[in-house]
Amino acid sequence: MKGVGFVEMGKKAAVLGAGGLSGRELLRLLRNHPKLEVCHITSDRYAGKSLGEIFQEQGRKSKLTFQKHNSPLPSDSVVFLAGPDAFAREKVPSLVEQGIYFVDLSAAFRFSEGKITYGLPEIFREDIRLSKGIANPGCYPTSIILPLFSLGEWRKNISFISINSASGISGAGGRKEDNGFLYQNVYENFRSYRVLCHQHEPEIQKYASHGMGRQPPYQLVFIPHLLPINRGILTTTVIYWKGSPPQGLEDHFRKLAEIEEFIRFYDSPEEIEIQNVQRTNEIHLSIRTRESISVIVSALDNLVKGAAGQAIQNMNLMLGFPEAMGIDGT
Amino acid sequence: MKGVGFVEMGKKAAVLGAGGLSGRELLRLLRNHPKLEVCHITSDRYAGKSLGEIFQEQGRKSKLTFQKHNSPLPSDSVVFLAGPDAFAREKVPSLVEQGIYFVDLSAAFRFSEGKITYGLPEIFREDIRLSKGIANPGCYPTSIILPLFSLGEWRKNISFISINSASGISGAGGRKEDNGFLYQNVYENFRSYRVLCHQHEPEIQKYASHGMGRQPPYQLVFIPHLLPINRGILTTTVIYWKGSPPQGLEDHFRKLAEIEEFIRFYDSPEEIEIQNVQRTNEIHLSIRTRESISVIVSALDNLVKGAAGQAIQNMNLMLGFPEAMGIDGT
Amino acid sequence: MKGVGFVEMGKKAAVLGAGGLSGRELLRLLRNHPKLEVCHITSDRYAGKSLGEIFQEQGRKSKLTFQKHNSPLPSDSVVFLAGPDAFAREKVPSLVEQGIYFVDLSAAFRFSEGKITYGLPEIFREDIRLSKGIANPGCYPTSIILPLFSLGEWRKNISFISINSASGISGAGGRKEDNGFLYQNVYENFRSYRVLCHQHEPEIQKYASHGMGRQPPYQLVFIPHLLPINRGILTTTVIYWKGSPPQGLEDHFRKLAEIEEFIRFYDSPEEIEIQNVQRTNEIHLSIRTRESISVIVSALDNLVKGAAGQAIQNMNLMLGFPEAMGIDGT
Amino acid sequence: MKGVGFVEMGKKAAVLGAGGLSGRELLRLLRNHPKLEVCHITSDRYAGKSLGEIFQEQGRKSKLTFQKHNSPLPSDSVVFLAGPDAFAREKVPSLVEQGIYFVDLSAAFRFSEGKITYGLPEIFREDIRLSKGIANPGCYPTSIILPLFSLGEWRKNISFISINSASGISGAGGRKEDNGFLYQNVYENFRSYRVLCHQHEPEIQKYASHGMGRQPPYQLVFIPHLLPINRGILTTTVIYWKGSPPQGLEDHFRKLAEIEEFIRFYDSPEEIEIQNVQRTNEIHLSIRTRESISVIVSALDNLVKGAAGQAIQNMNLMLGFPEAMGIDGT
Repeated sequence: MKGVGFVEMGKKAAVLGAGGLSGRELLRLLRNHPKLEVCHITSDRYAGKSLGEIFQEQGRKSKLTFQKHNSPLPSDSVVFLAGPDAFAREKVPSLVEQGIYFVDLSAAFRFSEGKITYGLPEIFREDIRLSKGIANPGCYPTSIILPLFSLGEWRKNISFISINSASGISGAGGRKEDNGFLYQNVYENFRSYRVLCHQHEPEIQKYASHGMGRQPPYQLVFIPHLLPINRGILTTTVIYWKGSPPQGLEDHFRKLAEIEEFIRFYDSPEEIEIQNVQRTNEIHLSIRTRESISVIVSALDNLVKGAAGQAIQNMNLMLGFPEAMGIDGT
Repeated sequence: MKGVGFVEMGKKAAVLGAGGLSGRELLRLLRNHPKLEVCHITSDRYAGKSLGEIFQEQGRKSKLTFQKHNSPLPSDSVVFLAGPDAFAREKVPSLVEQGIYFVDLSAAFRFSEGKITYGLPEIFREDIRLSKGIANPGCYPTSIILPLFSLGEWRKNISFISINSASGISGAGGRKEDNGFLYQNVYENFRSYRVLCHQHEPEIQKYASHGMGRQPPYQLVFIPHLLPINRGILTTTVIYWKGSPPQGLEDHFRKLAEIEEFIRFYDSPEEIEIQNVQRTNEIHLSIRTRESISVIVSALDNLVKGAAGQAIQNMNLMLGFPEAMGIDGT
Repeated sequence: MKGVGFVEMGKKAAVLGAGGLSGRELLRLLRNHPKLEVCHITSDRYAGKSLGEIFQEQGRKSKLTFQKHNSPLPSDSVVFLAGPDAFAREKVPSLVEQGIYFVDLSAAFRFSEGKITYGLPEIFREDIRLSKGIANPGCYPTSIILPLFSLGEWRKNISFISINSASGISGAGGRKEDNGFLYQNVYENFRSYRVLCHQHEPEIQKYASHGMGRQPPYQLVFIPHLLPINRGILTTTVIYWKGSPPQGLEDHFRKLAEIEEFIRFYDSPEEIEIQNVQRTNEIHLSIRTRESISVIVSALDNLVKGAAGQAIQNMNLMLGFPEAMGIDGT
Repeated sequence: MKGVGFVEMGKKAAVLGAGGLSGRELLRLLRNHPKLEVCHITSDRYAGKSLGEIFQEQGRKSKLTFQKHNSPLPSDSVVFLAGPDAFAREKVPSLVEQGIYFVDLSAAFRFSEGKITYGLPEIFREDIRLSKGIANPGCYPTSIILPLFSLGEWRKNISFISINSASGISGAGGRKEDNGFLYQNVYENFRSYRVLCHQHEPEIQKYASHGMGRQPPYQLVFIPHLLPINRGILTTTVIYWKGSPPQGLEDHFRKLAEIEEFIRFYDSPEEIEIQNVQRTNEIHLSIRTRESISVIVSALDNLVKGAAGQAIQNMNLMLGFPEAMGIDGT
């Protein structure tokens, strides 16, 4: 049950570039947010159409209508940018200048220094609270960085890291209308893509080794694959330790999961399933160690914890709302 | 955005038999209902476990815990019964006797006369408002009866009706652990089942011809099929008219859709897709006529408009809440 | 086991337009034909490439290379045309003139009178034996006409026929690169298409009522649907009889199946599954009757009995080979 | 085209335990083998039923009938054992004693020394030619050992190997009727299983480092995953080299593929797709190197090169037939 009525201290929210998969997911999640009310949505493609006509799950009676991207932003609104990198590069500078709270879901500012904070709340929570602009992490990086970063000083004892991820189609290219995404080329199929050259690898390198100095102390390889499913990412991370593995790895993750609402720990890697994280803002984790090798299996929904859910989590932090507000169940 | 805080005049709700697919869907939808707060859930299978441990989409911090079926009902609560027919037959009489508001999602009381109303709001809205007990319609019947009943007096001119439905696995047997539901027997496959002998056929016969006297004036055949998908039903209804078809059929449905929040009309049958109704409480409809034949294509989500969503719609009506409360978008 | 060595009286075969789905299936099936040796394949798109490079199931060492469509036909070869209608219209007249044996898989000549025979062997076997040119039936029509035509004189007692078919993607448009065939628009979805206006409906009308005079004695409606699978068609045909249904319908089909190698009869419609006919040249059938209604469920593989397999069956008949040669198991 | 008639020097073949997935695939492939004629099939479950009744792709007129497992073996036949490990342990000793040629598809004798040869033809071809009994490799091991073993002496420079494999359901448990294989638990899902404890890991360890002495010079970790598809395995192998990687890795594989009929090399790992190897006896390979890391992506059909196809390849070698006979295209 959620209460009715607009709450004091609530905020108006604008979703720019709302016509894509991340935008759609943001709108779905924000419907149930007690303190953020979507008042402005833009999409050049759908401009003039009502929200419920394009996204049926919003209901026929939704009063929102898509506006052109360049239509004026309502005053006092906070902003989610759900468009591609170029779109963000065009819009963000003016938001920064005006001091408007925003979360950008694109990759455009994930390496920016200064005014824009990398929005992985479980790592940079305090920085995010003090920020007005957030670069929301990618879906693959979130599934990888969260477990790796949380190894803390133990990372110094790592020799190599091998990361295999598999993503549903919405995380691997979304609406791109090329032949690779035709039904007959995805169904009953599986393949790797961008082997050793995925655009997310630098993001993973940087934040997985955050706080360890300029040069990551270990080698890391990341290989993404395309699954014949709609949504979800499962990542299998193999860590080769220098010498014996640290004691207490499992307990470390178990305790982390007790503190962090969106991290759920399982005793066995086999319990981590994409199905269990779909449409949640959770990351599920497990770890198993044998001799000098640890295997971490992690899973999340690329559109929620990997995009729209985490964006709301970041906005909640910036605005002083409870961090899990509106995304603690779906 | 939804407001916070418990609203005056809200109600506590119990979901009995909450461990199955319909129960899970009810809990998912009720999270966002402004005036119904779930306070009691039962499942003998999961008794003692927390809600979020079993149904991950409810979040790790959900405070509800599954109780045994025979644990006492909290006072002043309204009740959803999401168990099988036998379960309902055991529980319902006592609810009737105590005057407790309830919606039963099973088929047990769909032919009952008297105290329990058949809960198809678009047809029996006023009866539902005056009821305290509802037999919630089946998923196939809802997809079929709504368009057929709304033909009104035109039904007298029908000669034959041929109905083909196709349902995802959650509507065709759910968790039944028989071989027919093994992955390799559903995937890359399609088949009919219970041809001319489906248990829902009498329900369809009765309510599709409601108000036309004891003997339905036309013959009707219903053939269900199993789709290799998770959720959703698409029904293709072929009507053979006696002589010329009525004038104004399309307009009739278009107008109906303007009045009814959960009926959406499309100009072309080809626009009706299961994908568009998934996780909504809507039924999508279109009709095309050629010579003495009309084809109606309709689609709904078997777990929402075909089960849990419609159950909430009925409860809203009984309790005097706005009919679409909590189910007008997901 | 198949013997080795080229058999006396064997024939060379050319497959024109071999780069599509039907061509690929023809090549797969002809590999195991004891008397037809593929010696010439054409595809403007793949011209110059080796067969095994494009179609991996043909093996790396296949010696065939795709030629341009206008490259000269080897002398003494028989011809399969696997291109679109326009392609057939261009090529067929010259084949007719030269007296070359051919089977055209397109729809271009299915209504032609005279020199080109409609290639449904179970109906027109003797005509086919005497022919040099065949118009191979469509996949939907084969699944529908075979059971309906075999009703013989009983067809006079039919009042209405309602046909619902569902096809995998290879039968519903194949490689068409439009949005409707993107993974995310087919997967976890189901929809009808070309309702009351499918291009195959006249073919169904004509041959289902073959031998009954110009005007079919009953009304027939055909509605195709798109399944989220690769291959196979399941057709559910509802027949409304004038008065009582004929006696002995089941036995009639059972006997037909005893005679016809590629028709398999099952006692229950529920036993007809797409999975069982995939990669076979069989049509599976069952019938159930209740009062004045009969339901026939039929299934076939759209690329085999619905295209390439039936084309070989026709060629076998024309050339005097055993009808099932090369297609009696896969 | 395949010739007809039984060829001099052909052999009769028995398939014991023919009722499972591997047996079914063997029967499908052997239909087109020019020198092996299946004359005896056993399955206690299907005893007394005709082959075509159980496996529809064999055609209705197949003359074979399933026998009980303990029915006498026809004289002079060669044997394929397609049952589980226990079945093989019971049957194999007597076959060895009688000097009957056999291939056992189970894991029972993969570590046996002496009379039974491990049947990976690309590695042990000459041993296989001289053998009368073969332990056919597992599907995962084949996809992994072939590329790793072929690195030859370069293996000495390997530091660590991390192997991620993903298999369709037929390779990950086949017909097991447990909940994990229900449609709703596989579809729209992905998960790892038996992490660091898969029963195939010792087989991989042993043969990947074959010829390098008792102690493998590198550490190796293997993690299998379950794909929501029917058939096929894709393996992503990450190799960490000690120091610089060897020169000429790509060329090495390219040349190997020129010699080996069933190994196909692609320039880019992204070109390796499960779809391309389905129903072939091929393994597709590619390798990419960056700094001290090489990534090999390999794919095969678990039921063909990973089971039945490779079994025939082994039998061909033992009997002196051309190695690719009957399996060089499907």
